[in-house]
Amino acid sequence: MFAFQDFIKSARDGTLAVAAVLLFVASAYAQSDPLPSWNDTASKAAIVSFVEKVTGQGSPDFIPEPERVAVFDNDGTLWVEHPIYVQLAFALDRVKVLAPQHPEWKETQPFKAALEGDMKALAASGEKGLVELIMTTHAGMTSSDFQKIVTDWLASARDPKFKRPYTELVYQPMVELLAYFRANGFKTFIVSGGGIEFMRPWAEKVYGVPPEQVIGSSIKTEFRMQDDTPTLYRLPEVNFIDDKAGKPVGINQQIGRRPIAAFGNSDGDLEMLQWTTMAGAPARLGVLIHHTDAEHEYAYDRDTEVGRLDKALDAAAIAGWTVVDMKADWKHVFKD
Amino acid sequence: MFAFQDFIKSARDGTLAVAAVLLFVASAYAQSDPLPSWNDTASKAAIVSFVEKVTGQGSPDFIPEPERVAVFDNDGTLWVEHPIYVQLAFALDRVKVLAPQHPEWKETQPFKAALEGDMKALAASGEKGLVELIMTTHAGMTSSDFQKIVTDWLASARDPKFKRPYTELVYQPMVELLAYFRANGFKTFIVSGGGIEFMRPWAEKVYGVPPEQVIGSSIKTEFRMQDDTPTLYRLPEVNFIDDKAGKPVGINQQIGRRPIAAFGNSDGDLEMLQWTTMAGAPARLGVLIHHTDAEHEYAYDRDTEVGRLDKALDAAAIAGWTVVDMKADWKHVFKD
Repeated sequence: MFAFQDFIKSARDGTLAVAAVLLFVASAYAQSDPLPSWNDTASKAAIVSFVEKVTGQGSPDFIPEPERVAVFDNDGTLWVEHPIYVQLAFALDRVKVLAPQHPEWKETQPFKAALEGDMKALAASGEKGLVELIMTTHAGMTSSDFQKIVTDWLASARDPKFKRPYTELVYQPMVELLAYFRANGFKTFIVSGGGIEFMRPWAEKVYGVPPEQVIGSSIKTEFRMQDDTPTLYRLPEVNFIDDKAGKPVGINQQIGRRPIAAFGNSDGDLEMLQWTTMAGAPARLGVLIHHTDAEHEYAYDRDTEVGRLDKALDAAAIAGWTVVDMKADWKHVFKD
Repeated sequence: MFAFQDFIKSARDGTLAVAAVLLFVASAYAQSDPLPSWNDTASKAAIVSFVEKVTGQGSPDFIPEPERVAVFDNDGTLWVEHPIYVQLAFALDRVKVLAPQHPEWKETQPFKAALEGDMKALAASGEKGLVELIMTTHAGMTSSDFQKIVTDWLASARDPKFKRPYTELVYQPMVELLAYFRANGFKTFIVSGGGIEFMRPWAEKVYGVPPEQVIGSSIKTEFRMQDDTPTLYRLPEVNFIDDKAGKPVGINQQIGRRPIAAFGNSDGDLEMLQWTTMAGAPARLGVLIHHTDAEHEYAYDRDTEVGRLDKALDAAAIAGWTVVDMKADWKHVFKD
């Protein structure tokens, strides 16, 4: 008798065969141009060589599909983070929207600084001030209401320098890279210090990364029944900070496998790259995006407060990570 | 010029066409027998009818593949939970293994009770005692060491009643259901009150659910460099309890989408079923597995301490959830 299990197995084998053909075609085509926005430099060669090594049938470094996990930082790795994180721009705009209900903010920090656009006073309010700003603007509503607030804001907000929606300020070479990895059987995850519910409403559309593959910082939520409708209510309390040593923890919590490729751009990504590449296996990829293109984006590394790249840059030389020189390695930064 | 994006698109369209054919074949075959271990009762009909409704092209309740998320409790829904949770049996065995290094345990609760197999004294030690038992046996090692301990234990441990490895005490009708949902384009997730790192080492092999689709309770972990090797160290501190009102929170944290189908068996699953089915949309499925087969497994509901089904059983009648009668609806409980 033809059992259901057998059917499932044949269906799976069939799918695998088709996948193999597609991969072959993909691989053949890849030889002409898998990453059109990348110049033919050592960085591109290192990335492509890694992918071919772990996907090539018979390659000594072959890694089966389910274990092909690639993790990508977001701010400064997939989209612009200067002069301030997009999520901070969102928080500052929210303060302005909410201000009429809070006349006291005109005289209270950090809200006064936010309303006046006084970044120096805002910085002086320190981490305590920043947390207060985030909690006031990110908590006190349901998750689905917050999702709508983020979506509406992104539709109208514009970056002050580039005069474009923030979701257009994603790096085209990295969007190609995400697609290239997926075409080679990888699951691509975002692992960001930014808020998980700030990214999920748009990450699928912009990066092709579904909500369940977005990892980030979070505040606590609480299940509440409101008039027979179940909701998740966002509380003004930190749940998890997905940055620095928190990134491997977040990866383990949400993925439960060690990635084989990691992309970052700052010291906040150091531990994620260590966790990914220093496991003893040879075929691992660590990549740092180095902001070197002041003409088309920004140039910064060791001396910036936002996205500082210092310890991780030193570590890259020792660990053999690929450092992408945005100016030299990319043909263009954004999609035209 | 044939752009890379076009290739990706054709590849995707090709895959979709193949998937459509496979789904057609699947659907044709499904009409003969998608779930061979299920009797042809109302429960099976309700489940199959839901799947056909949300997957049928042109169906008014059609739901696109990325939104087809189904969540399954583990203990008592996918495998045996009586007379004690498997993870508790693991903890008790670990106490015995570690006892020689802790002579004081012979006189200290809850360890004395654990060593003597005195379940009454263990219960008397309350939640505090249980947490102490879990922390002593689940923390103080790296995640990968813990994974090995779990794997080794499962290879040798036997259920005292059935004399079989615990991983053979999974419900065959539910294993078929997991495969049936996946064959219909669903992503299947486990959402358990049990430990996430206790389930991940075997869930892929036994259920076909990869680590990134396992959600559960967790203790805190810390990133540590040990002799230039990055590790995650398990700390004796609760991180998250994925039970009752925690289940919708865990689902939102790790999936970021609301499921459209949920399977549970106890009051610990009540909020997960509410969150899944009470969102206003018509095509949602809530299922409770009711343990009614004392001959082949166990029979229990409102009066048990382990897997109590009381409030959720009342809620099922009001919310229209399907209550699976294990004795009447299943041909057999385990794979022979």
